[in-house]
Amino acid sequence: MAQDISKKALALHKELGGKVRMEPAMKVRTRDELSLIYTPGVAAVSTFVAKNPRLARDYTMKGKMVAVISDGSAVLGLGNIGPLGALPVMEGKCALFKSFGNVDAFPIVLDTQDPKEIIETIIRIAPGFGGINLEDFAAPNCFEIEDALKAKLDIPVMHDDQHGTAIAVLAALMNAAKVVNKKFSSLSVVVSGAGAAGTAISKLLVQAGIEDIVVLDSKGIINLVRKNLTPHKKELAKMTNRRGLHGGLEEALADADVLIGVSGPGLLGAKQIKLMAQKAIVFAMANPVPEIMPEEAAKGGAMVIGTGRSDYPNQINNSLVFPGVFRGALDNRVTKITDKMKLQAAKNLAALVPNPTALKIVPGPFEKGIAEAVAKAIK
Amino acid sequence: MAQDISKKALALHKELGGKVRMEPAMKVRTRDELSLIYTPGVAAVSTFVAKNPRLARDYTMKGKMVAVISDGSAVLGLGNIGPLGALPVMEGKCALFKSFGNVDAFPIVLDTQDPKEIIETIIRIAPGFGGINLEDFAAPNCFEIEDALKAKLDIPVMHDDQHGTAIAVLAALMNAAKVVNKKFSSLSVVVSGAGAAGTAISKLLVQAGIEDIVVLDSKGIINLVRKNLTPHKKELAKMTNRRGLHGGLEEALADADVLIGVSGPGLLGAKQIKLMAQKAIVFAMANPVPEIMPEEAAKGGAMVIGTGRSDYPNQINNSLVFPGVFRGALDNRVTKITDKMKLQAAKNLAALVPNPTALKIVPGPFEKGIAEAVAKAIK
Repeated sequence: MAQDISKKALALHKELGGKVRMEPAMKVRTRDELSLIYTPGVAAVSTFVAKNPRLARDYTMKGKMVAVISDGSAVLGLGNIGPLGALPVMEGKCALFKSFGNVDAFPIVLDTQDPKEIIETIIRIAPGFGGINLEDFAAPNCFEIEDALKAKLDIPVMHDDQHGTAIAVLAALMNAAKVVNKKFSSLSVVVSGAGAAGTAISKLLVQAGIEDIVVLDSKGIINLVRKNLTPHKKELAKMTNRRGLHGGLEEALADADVLIGVSGPGLLGAKQIKLMAQKAIVFAMANPVPEIMPEEAAKGGAMVIGTGRSDYPNQINNSLVFPGVFRGALDNRVTKITDKMKLQAAKNLAALVPNPTALKIVPGPFEKGIAEAVAKAIK
Repeated sequence: MAQDISKKALALHKELGGKVRMEPAMKVRTRDELSLIYTPGVAAVSTFVAKNPRLARDYTMKGKMVAVISDGSAVLGLGNIGPLGALPVMEGKCALFKSFGNVDAFPIVLDTQDPKEIIETIIRIAPGFGGINLEDFAAPNCFEIEDALKAKLDIPVMHDDQHGTAIAVLAALMNAAKVVNKKFSSLSVVVSGAGAAGTAISKLLVQAGIEDIVVLDSKGIINLVRKNLTPHKKELAKMTNRRGLHGGLEEALADADVLIGVSGPGLLGAKQIKLMAQKAIVFAMANPVPEIMPEEAAKGGAMVIGTGRSDYPNQINNSLVFPGVFRGALDNRVTKITDKMKLQAAKNLAALVPNPTALKIVPGPFEKGIAEAVAKAIK
């Protein structure tokens, strides 16, 4: 099955010869059109835009074009496979941007993995774009890169592996709490993985009012006692783990209501799920192979189970989020994606499933109105 | 008239909201398509391309996408109006790439005019592209930038203001020589302007076998006696002006067969044209206002007159050239555009007008087969 998809995907990509095309808004067919689209007419537009830079969004692609940028340092679950390896994913993402959100997006892959070089390069190519979607940058560089770009650019910048994922998880968790009939803010949550996604999820859950969050990296529970924590993990240590736990996954899972896996394949089995509280919620989001397969999680007693996969119920994927976020940001000329917007986006996304069940806590990717609902939050 | 075009162009650009769109090669409409275009299927493509970088052209946009890049330092005849001012021109250029050559091209404008920064930025964003079209970079930086990128990248790099223009001029001059019945290599040529276009035209004419070329900049005839010449002008001084002329435009024009103006508006009148040899050829290419208006050049006795304008006969414009150059480069996976290719491209372009007349030395921009003819030379 998986091999079959791989074969088919390779054949399709070769047939298509890449997944993005540039199409002019108007083909040039006559001398009159040529004189308006290009010289001499374009000179008036260039002069006008140079004098009125704020109106560039009305007269150029800056009003609609998002750059989807990667350095290939953390591509899907494949790791650091470099810019060319990242390119098919970025092209696919651009195809989803247009298909789901009618957003024009263009892939750019970088021949550097140095944060300083990445930051200065993106700033230098930014003038023509209306937004920057960072993608598949590894932690911890991704934090530094996103922070610097947000501070220096006047267009929205979002590292989707962080915030797209966090918004989707928050929406799913809001509905899952309803299904298991537990109070959202009282949920005890374990986040396995302190990379880009785990960090952003943890922070957004704190913003959303959840007080009991325990985060683990490959060395175990993150707490203030641990030495040599990187800056972003130190920040996590300060804002999570109020019970001061230490140890590993089993210690963290004892009586927990929620496990959010954003780490790696096959991390745990039914035995560990049994340590959790009754009516446990398990989001096992490593892709394509989750931390625990849904069948196994159910065996352990989990009541609501989500993954990143399209072949199981409850696909919690950032493709529910990023097209709407940038649709809204472009339409409303938003310059920063704030925490408030992210929380509202999650609420709007959750509200698309008014009567959630164990098998349906988020809308399917092809349901109507998803991007529109998310876009309404970004203003 | 000109004001009317400006007004219309502004209105059209606002209506369109920019001139380029990203279209996916395949819209994503079903779960199966999603699993091939994006995860999990795309993982196989990413893995394959990362392991076989040379095959990236078959599986990604690298096989078809050209970056059209500018720093806005020399936009049309408008001067240094910066990246946002350059953007409408770059978008227009991309529209022509697709309309004339079926080439996918994407505009990128740079927030830096430092050659070192420009070079490193373009190298860093190059992996996803199959070619780089540099546009509206001012001399002399344009020479350093193009040379460095050619040396460091394994995809074709062309500064179109130089080489696109030079190829179009050479083609036009080949046919003009037939019209005036003079031997091409014996033509005595004056090039007014030693910027990007003037330099490239002079060099290509030397390659094409013309021995008597005199180049002028704003200070007069370029010769080896002049002090403080920039490196590219010193190079021009060495390869041109075999008769050792000095002085200004009138000294240069005495008995010359050809005047190629790539300098600025209204440089000369009929009186100066009368200094030239019988059956003079005048290409007055400053845009939109040429060095001399065609009516005035005719009054001075010029027999063949070309401009960059679409409202006079003999529009000598690089739009005849760049779509075909990159079409050929992509189709034949050429890594460098060589002088030999440029000479052949000019020959192929000239051959599209088998029986040239004073009013027709180059094909009109909308004639069929132009890009194809040029593309055949790039292999």
